[in-house]
Amino acid sequence: MKQRATIRDVAAAAGVSVATVSYVLNGKKKVSEQTRNVVLDVIKELEYVPDLNAKSLSVKDTKLIGVVVPQTEPGSTLMFRNNFYGEILGSIEYHARQYGYHVLISATDVTEDYLNLIRERNLDGVIIIGTYQSEFFEQLRQLDLPVVMVDSYCEYNWFHEVRIDDQKGIYQATKYVLDAGHREVGLVCGLLHEDGVMQKRFRGYQQALAEYGIPFRQEYVFEGNVDYDSGVEIAGRIVRTQKDLTAVVATADMFAIGLMKGFYEAGIRVPEDISVMGFDDLDISAYMTPGLTTVRQEISLKGEHAVNLLVQNMADAGMKKATEILPVRIVERESVKRKG
Amino acid sequence: MKQRATIRDVAAAAGVSVATVSYVLNGKKKVSEQTRNVVLDVIKELEYVPDLNAKSLSVKDTKLIGVVVPQTEPGSTLMFRNNFYGEILGSIEYHARQYGYHVLISATDVTEDYLNLIRERNLDGVIIIGTYQSEFFEQLRQLDLPVVMVDSYCEYNWFHEVRIDDQKGIYQATKYVLDAGHREVGLVCGLLHEDGVMQKRFRGYQQALAEYGIPFRQEYVFEGNVDYDSGVEIAGRIVRTQKDLTAVVATADMFAIGLMKGFYEAGIRVPEDISVMGFDDLDISAYMTPGLTTVRQEISLKGEHAVNLLVQNMADAGMKKATEILPVRIVERESVKRKG
Repeated sequence: MKQRATIRDVAAAAGVSVATVSYVLNGKKKVSEQTRNVVLDVIKELEYVPDLNAKSLSVKDTKLIGVVVPQTEPGSTLMFRNNFYGEILGSIEYHARQYGYHVLISATDVTEDYLNLIRERNLDGVIIIGTYQSEFFEQLRQLDLPVVMVDSYCEYNWFHEVRIDDQKGIYQATKYVLDAGHREVGLVCGLLHEDGVMQKRFRGYQQALAEYGIPFRQEYVFEGNVDYDSGVEIAGRIVRTQKDLTAVVATADMFAIGLMKGFYEAGIRVPEDISVMGFDDLDISAYMTPGLTTVRQEISLKGEHAVNLLVQNMADAGMKKATEILPVRIVERESVKRKG
Repeated sequence: MKQRATIRDVAAAAGVSVATVSYVLNGKKKVSEQTRNVVLDVIKELEYVPDLNAKSLSVKDTKLIGVVVPQTEPGSTLMFRNNFYGEILGSIEYHARQYGYHVLISATDVTEDYLNLIRERNLDGVIIIGTYQSEFFEQLRQLDLPVVMVDSYCEYNWFHEVRIDDQKGIYQATKYVLDAGHREVGLVCGLLHEDGVMQKRFRGYQQALAEYGIPFRQEYVFEGNVDYDSGVEIAGRIVRTQKDLTAVVATADMFAIGLMKGFYEAGIRVPEDISVMGFDDLDISAYMTPGLTTVRQEISLKGEHAVNLLVQNMADAGMKKATEILPVRIVERESVKRKG
């Protein structure tokens, strides 16, 4: 058997430290584009395969990773049309390509079918976006391949995670609106019973209200599917039933954009008559008139970190579970008005 | 990963040849009902899943199709963030899945690399979106696999085509604005020297002006990259240099949305001060306030037809070149004002 190249051989041939090679593989620290290219070239030339230890080396490296995106509706073609997914998928495709991986994107329902797909295509790893049934995660675990979850809250502790602090994010959003002087503040959120992210965000809203001594009112909470149409519909409901609201915090920009349109159609001006606060900072949120004030999460960075963790785990089968919590920040535009 | 059963394991357990198992799987030769049942039982029992990537299976059909999307900028992660591509990719992924195909999406620069990818991945067919260098098409032709071009104008006549009548589309858009009473009508379009689609649309604008006896004025034509930022920038230029314009026809909704924002920021109201006409009818064009009046092309239908043609050609290698021209229609919203 041919002597396998080690990480030390790669470092020596590339004229860099072992740590640098490791950073290129795991993305934990920034490496200059030039150095990165040199290291990747050497890895290719030496056919360096990171030590898989117990793992059978005969497992064929297909250079193919799977990405699972939730379907908002069964049979929907909308996968890429929700801008959040468009942005994160663009980032995952780009960064995977930098490591020489191709991406098989599926909006297929996450069932036995997807587990078959993983086996049939012999995928090297999988990035899961969103929350799914726990059976799925259990079955996935049995396949014993590198998995990174993005924005998945699940009771299991097996897979790497990349996410933000969702509770804190909406806490900050609500606090921003309260600091602007609003006291009658609604929440527009996804279906709370089925979505871990939405529950965290709901708690962030309650936490901020409590801190300001404002009683929580159930009738100020509006649940819906996380999409534009729901936002439009909920704006109509707010106009009809909750005229006291002076501000709404939306748990997703797609909601906020629908709300703005719904208010516009009802002749209610944003922000003069009602303030709207978003969450995500999608590209299109800046396109709106007025521009949407929102909580920015680094969507592209989420994709990049997910790819880095996956590549790292593919190189090191014994890698410990990693959890990365990315930062968020308020982006001020024009949709929230200072009151009084 | 758990040791997977191989086709040899199945053959041994079923007491048949590997070829027989292969025939049961691919249906290429008739196998007796009894043998077939035995093989299928063993496949089930051993949880055998064919490795679709394995060349050894010698079945040429990988059930994988490639989709090529132009990169707006080299190294950009924006592929999915241009909503036009998001919509058409969502449709292609969905319809391919209905036929049992998976989609490998690449924003990789269309060079030798992509031709290698086609070979390495043994793709069953390719859908090309947009216009590329003619060398690429020539090389692609030599690979001799089914190809469908979407929105590609090229001098070659080899591949199937799905597109709209771009000239007629912008002719209709311009006519709509002229019929609304506007006479000082600008055109905002992509770079004319490099894009077949943009040239056709440019001619449609000139055709409508000529029909209304309005002289063409070069200073009313604004070229830029087809994106939001260009739209914002061009709005600024129009405000500074072409105050006589009362309406602008944009050759893409992304432009129009940028124009609306640019005018908004300059204190110019749409449609009260200037009318804006779009082209595409992206989902987000309805989200705008005011809603964008535009020419709707059936983006999802383009994706669906491209998949259908490809699947048809994969089933019939001798299929004649097909060209499908899909219809467009005006969608009236609020961004174009009737004048006088």
